[in-house]
Amino acid sequence: MMSIYKELKQECYEANMQLNALNLVVYTFGNVSAVDRKNSVFAIKPSGVAYEVLKPQDIVIVDFDNNIIEGSMRPSSDTKTHAYLYKKWKDIGGIAHTHATYSVAWAQSQLDIPIFGTTHADHLTADIPCAPPMDDALIEGNYEHNTGIQIIDCFKEKQLSHSEVEMVLIGNHGPFTWGKDGAKAVYNSKVLEVVAKMAYLTKQINPEAKRLKDSLIKKHYDRKHGSSAYYGQ
Amino acid sequence: MMSIYKELKQECYEANMQLNALNLVVYTFGNVSAVDRKNSVFAIKPSGVAYEVLKPQDIVIVDFDNNIIEGSMRPSSDTKTHAYLYKKWKDIGGIAHTHATYSVAWAQSQLDIPIFGTTHADHLTADIPCAPPMDDALIEGNYEHNTGIQIIDCFKEKQLSHSEVEMVLIGNHGPFTWGKDGAKAVYNSKVLEVVAKMAYLTKQINPEAKRLKDSLIKKHYDRKHGSSAYYGQ
Amino acid sequence: MMSIYKELKQECYEANMQLNALNLVVYTFGNVSAVDRKNSVFAIKPSGVAYEVLKPQDIVIVDFDNNIIEGSMRPSSDTKTHAYLYKKWKDIGGIAHTHATYSVAWAQSQLDIPIFGTTHADHLTADIPCAPPMDDALIEGNYEHNTGIQIIDCFKEKQLSHSEVEMVLIGNHGPFTWGKDGAKAVYNSKVLEVVAKMAYLTKQINPEAKRLKDSLIKKHYDRKHGSSAYYGQ
Amino acid sequence: MMSIYKELKQECYEANMQLNALNLVVYTFGNVSAVDRKNSVFAIKPSGVAYEVLKPQDIVIVDFDNNIIEGSMRPSSDTKTHAYLYKKWKDIGGIAHTHATYSVAWAQSQLDIPIFGTTHADHLTADIPCAPPMDDALIEGNYEHNTGIQIIDCFKEKQLSHSEVEMVLIGNHGPFTWGKDGAKAVYNSKVLEVVAKMAYLTKQINPEAKRLKDSLIKKHYDRKHGSSAYYGQ
Repeated sequence: MMSIYKELKQECYEANMQLNALNLVVYTFGNVSAVDRKNSVFAIKPSGVAYEVLKPQDIVIVDFDNNIIEGSMRPSSDTKTHAYLYKKWKDIGGIAHTHATYSVAWAQSQLDIPIFGTTHADHLTADIPCAPPMDDALIEGNYEHNTGIQIIDCFKEKQLSHSEVEMVLIGNHGPFTWGKDGAKAVYNSKVLEVVAKMAYLTKQINPEAKRLKDSLIKKHYDRKHGSSAYYGQ
Repeated sequence: MMSIYKELKQECYEANMQLNALNLVVYTFGNVSAVDRKNSVFAIKPSGVAYEVLKPQDIVIVDFDNNIIEGSMRPSSDTKTHAYLYKKWKDIGGIAHTHATYSVAWAQSQLDIPIFGTTHADHLTADIPCAPPMDDALIEGNYEHNTGIQIIDCFKEKQLSHSEVEMVLIGNHGPFTWGKDGAKAVYNSKVLEVVAKMAYLTKQINPEAKRLKDSLIKKHYDRKHGSSAYYGQ
Repeated sequence: MMSIYKELKQECYEANMQLNALNLVVYTFGNVSAVDRKNSVFAIKPSGVAYEVLKPQDIVIVDFDNNIIEGSMRPSSDTKTHAYLYKKWKDIGGIAHTHATYSVAWAQSQLDIPIFGTTHADHLTADIPCAPPMDDALIEGNYEHNTGIQIIDCFKEKQLSHSEVEMVLIGNHGPFTWGKDGAKAVYNSKVLEVVAKMAYLTKQINPEAKRLKDSLIKKHYDRKHGSSAYYGQ
Repeated sequence: MMSIYKELKQECYEANMQLNALNLVVYTFGNVSAVDRKNSVFAIKPSGVAYEVLKPQDIVIVDFDNNIIEGSMRPSSDTKTHAYLYKKWKDIGGIAHTHATYSVAWAQSQLDIPIFGTTHADHLTADIPCAPPMDDALIEGNYEHNTGIQIIDCFKEKQLSHSEVEMVLIGNHGPFTWGKDGAKAVYNSKVLEVVAKMAYLTKQINPEAKRLKDSLIKKHYDRKHGSSAYYGQ
């Protein structure tokens, strides 16, 4: 039987393989999903399947209430986090989660990543937020669903826009990133890891290093994102 | 003449080659063994043979009292440590030993690796123990045999279960890991190295970083290992 | 129609691909140009084009006043910086810009890279200068053009010769390097990254590490560059 | 015309290519030589030739007084250091010099590398010595020849045996290693780099980390090198 989600599965498969090719995952410590807004479903990596053997047809189709729509394998254990974010942020098209080394190190440090330079400012105007670990009651409850709540709450509290800041660190855990599709979410995971390493080194070289000044933050962001952007084709 | 251990040697060979493919060894600084419980023997890498030329038929078969049962080469110099662990822990099927960089750095620091995040908690519920260097009398005696004793003593003293914590650091030396078979032991060596690097970076970024709180440790462990585990297929 | 800049584009293309092969760029975070002094134009990477799909014919030809002479794509967003440097420093033939990790970390630290050893001294006799971030008025103005001014001002103030010191860090941003052609500019980007990593590690191992003494600086530089140079063929 | 040094050149060529394959050199920042004791000459890499284009016939044959015996290219600029060491230490067969990152960082820090663990002790029983930078008079004189003197003096002063300690750091410069042939010299360069990285990380994790205790140093060395060695085939 022909699936109507063949293309979606392929997009999701390719984004997951890209995560691996970019050295952002070891074993199965990561997953990417891609959404089909028309049908209110998303495609996501099956849980615990190695990248070496992953095939497009293994990708699982799930709706926003975590019901499996298509697929014989169990979806990623982080599926409920993805579902919650898709439900709340109606304009995102893909989500990625990794345990990439430098991103995780900042998450384990429970510190926001300071905006130290233009590599960072070319992509977002704020420090990369680190959400505090959730309360014990939420951990013992619907944990992955509550991780979604934790992300949204963090953005509310810090008054951040999820379309300007497409990444977050979960304290003691690791990064989630998103974007207009699965490929953009993976791109943001890579950018986050690069920026996390640069910020780590900067703090080691100069513990007194200062955040980028506001005029430079604005300039670099506008080059790429403003109404008169002139970066890229 | 046909060996009855052909399959065991092949398993052991593949696990050793995997150690190399995962960048856990330089030259011959590592070895993996795999056990055959029915015949009370294990297969282990020959000593000082480069991975580039290692062949399945080079693997040596040894019993739990360190007698060579099959093989024309000398077994790994760490053989007595493997033998002792197989003898004492009757439910493990494979053991790996490496000099992987970050694992060794913690061992040389003589510090347990604190459980800083969920990457760690997805695999074990405790800090990764570092056994103190052994007494001079034991070093001068049956050194590799006594390394086995040192590991078992460390687990007793810290009241750890070897089936929950499948890895240890030997102070000033490096890691030993184990599991249900050779492949799982190698997997644990890789996990340990990844966690060791993340913990190193975490301490550098935030010297005051806190261990993961108990509720999160429990949650992540149960996701993978508890009776209602839902991680993986 | 045959371009008279075919060879120039090829040189520029190859230098850009080399930047990628040497692990100095992630995605499109970098660019190289090569000059044609006779025609007062230079070839530069188009903006936002991935290295995987870049072709020699995509390279854009621009004059020193930033007019596009040939090419259907937009030139790199850093083009004005390149143009300004070519205009002011009439003896350089190529320029490279990267966001290489250790170079950026020093730029974000707003510190010159101290000349700690002979790897550094084999290439230049001074600390690698870090230009301070420019004034807000200049940032809000013709930013990339002003980055060129910022570099030239930094060299004037520190009384450095751009033919002896073929590299600079822009505070909070990253490195620019140059040389007799595009390939040499890329070579200098790699040397800078290597030296930046060594200096980082040196400061971590020994915060009191001293700069190379003058006699050694002179000796190593003369081996390669003096009138009686005897390094290389 | 057939060279009587064809085999020697081939050995030297392969050792140099191995240096590159082991990620110990960038560009031409390194060289290996191999000696022919019967004819009192050694083969060494030509100066400034990239590994990508190096051929066995490019290798230069030099005697212990630095006369070129065979070869059309200029020998490595470090040739006089090699010559001096071969002349003084009559039992070594190969020498390697690199600017490998972690080795250079310790040399730039002007610190001996402490013997922190068994990876180190499996190869040598002492801290890896760092020779202090030479006096200005010697630098301005026959520099590379004097680097040889500097190494020998350092071993005399620290009462080290060059057959037990096959490596040294030149302060502010980088490592020289040696061994029974070119391949062993390269092996020692790799071991040094690995040990240098482990020691760096150890100091970062635990600034109070202690040197390996004497009983362990002795045990690990004897396993490999003593009269009753049992490590390797």
